[in-house]
Amino acid sequence: MSILVFGHKNPDTDTICSAIAYVELKNKLGKDVKAVRLGEINEETKYALNYFKVEKPELMENVAGREIILVDHNERTQTADGFEEAKVLELIDHHRISNFNVDEPLYARVEPVGCTATIILKLFKENGLTPSKETAGLMLSAIISDTLLFKSPTCTQCDAKAGKELAEIAGVDLKEYGLEMLKAGTALGDKSEAELLNMDMKIFEIDGAKIGVAQVNTVNEAEVLERKEKLLAEIDNIIAKEGLKFFMLAITNILTNDSAALISGDGNDVVEKAFGEKVDSNLVTLKGVVSRKKQIIPPLTKAIQG
Amino acid sequence: MSILVFGHKNPDTDTICSAIAYVELKNKLGKDVKAVRLGEINEETKYALNYFKVEKPELMENVAGREIILVDHNERTQTADGFEEAKVLELIDHHRISNFNVDEPLYARVEPVGCTATIILKLFKENGLTPSKETAGLMLSAIISDTLLFKSPTCTQCDAKAGKELAEIAGVDLKEYGLEMLKAGTALGDKSEAELLNMDMKIFEIDGAKIGVAQVNTVNEAEVLERKEKLLAEIDNIIAKEGLKFFMLAITNILTNDSAALISGDGNDVVEKAFGEKVDSNLVTLKGVVSRKKQIIPPLTKAIQG
Repeated sequence: MSILVFGHKNPDTDTICSAIAYVELKNKLGKDVKAVRLGEINEETKYALNYFKVEKPELMENVAGREIILVDHNERTQTADGFEEAKVLELIDHHRISNFNVDEPLYARVEPVGCTATIILKLFKENGLTPSKETAGLMLSAIISDTLLFKSPTCTQCDAKAGKELAEIAGVDLKEYGLEMLKAGTALGDKSEAELLNMDMKIFEIDGAKIGVAQVNTVNEAEVLERKEKLLAEIDNIIAKEGLKFFMLAITNILTNDSAALISGDGNDVVEKAFGEKVDSNLVTLKGVVSRKKQIIPPLTKAIQG
Repeated sequence: MSILVFGHKNPDTDTICSAIAYVELKNKLGKDVKAVRLGEINEETKYALNYFKVEKPELMENVAGREIILVDHNERTQTADGFEEAKVLELIDHHRISNFNVDEPLYARVEPVGCTATIILKLFKENGLTPSKETAGLMLSAIISDTLLFKSPTCTQCDAKAGKELAEIAGVDLKEYGLEMLKAGTALGDKSEAELLNMDMKIFEIDGAKIGVAQVNTVNEAEVLERKEKLLAEIDNIIAKEGLKFFMLAITNILTNDSAALISGDGNDVVEKAFGEKVDSNLVTLKGVVSRKKQIIPPLTKAIQG
């Protein structure tokens, strides 16, 4: 049976494209591996896959009994069902390591860069290989997505350099393609509140408290906030279902690079301590905040722990 | 302040020598880093440091407030006090990842090879550098120690190849030096029972249960077992002090490559399930078992979990 390669639940563009790219690399190295996904793909990823004419990976929700390679995530709350009954061979990631426990030694390549695809390009090079045109396009899409076209504070020089190289291999104009792809990802009109919240939601466990943090990109936050009451009702459903302490939805404007955040549950104290901003009617403004990983999770973690 | 590089508590030869070697690499790359150790060095490591005329790293028991790089370990129970108040920049390791939680993305290079020094040699090469003669000697010592002169099942082709290369740089006869070093490590005569148990003890947390597993190398296990009653008394002290479910001391014969193990605490069921061998008067024979990491911890983990 093929080794399975997959990213996190509620897959985003990096998770899907890095799984596909790592499979291409492993296949070129003669390994029997296959990309799978843990959920529905979002509009942005759909745009990238369509553009480069690549099929989406097969859906697989339980990996018990399989050999697996994790990309773009490591926390238990974000990975596949059956994780404990699987054998983890590798981890390729750019997130903090937390609540990741395995029984046996593995190969782990984790770097503090903006995107998993940046690490995978490095691995291609270390093996003297180059991604195909299509795969390069998907890897580029992942980098644009994770760094908001190189504007996120998570973006490193490595990501910017990788982006340029990949755009050349893929034969696209980086900025033009990037803006089109990001805009495709902000098309929310036909999404239900539950769908919108699930598009890019992650659950984190901090000092025993589970919190949910979703993020949605937009070019017009007022459009999202029109649905505030319905969103809060759905957030409270998620809090009850997942047993969360609180939930935050960050609504990030990809043009101004600011976020507005909706908070529900027992989180106002933590959020106010973390960001030094008052929560008013479940809403808080986060100026210049675009990165969940670098600008939201670390201050929330510190506020909860101390 | 220098970034601190250190291995696990109850340091062994890989932990000490890999910290020294990684500091040499980082210094050559222009970084201000310094090796420290979390405890007394053992006879084997002393032999290696004396042979290659390298000073032992400074003792440091609390790393709160410092930037740190972990080598040769990652589990919380095996690392420095003050870990939660330190900033983890890097992890270079060859063990399973477990109970390792950090708040922010880091650089992690974990590979399923026999020795951390093997990974560090790879990192030297990736940076176009070569370790000094003395450091190569210490890295070789680490590989010989962790693989019992390439005879442990943890030993990979990478370790064997790295060992040969390092022996050449260090200018020593691999087998001759290796046997002398391993034998130096079996000199236990003047050690108290507490010292003997602490030389290479690690605590593991499995499904909420803490267990202690110490290992000692010998060329004559009868000599160690003469002290069985006194060792058991001291083991029970450790169990009480650390709140352990049980404790195992593996006495490994480096010439026959078998181990005898002393067990105390609530562990007979787990040990018998794990190894399919009867525990008789606190003693069990483990034929062909030399590796705690590969042949002791995985079966114990499975037996505890299921």
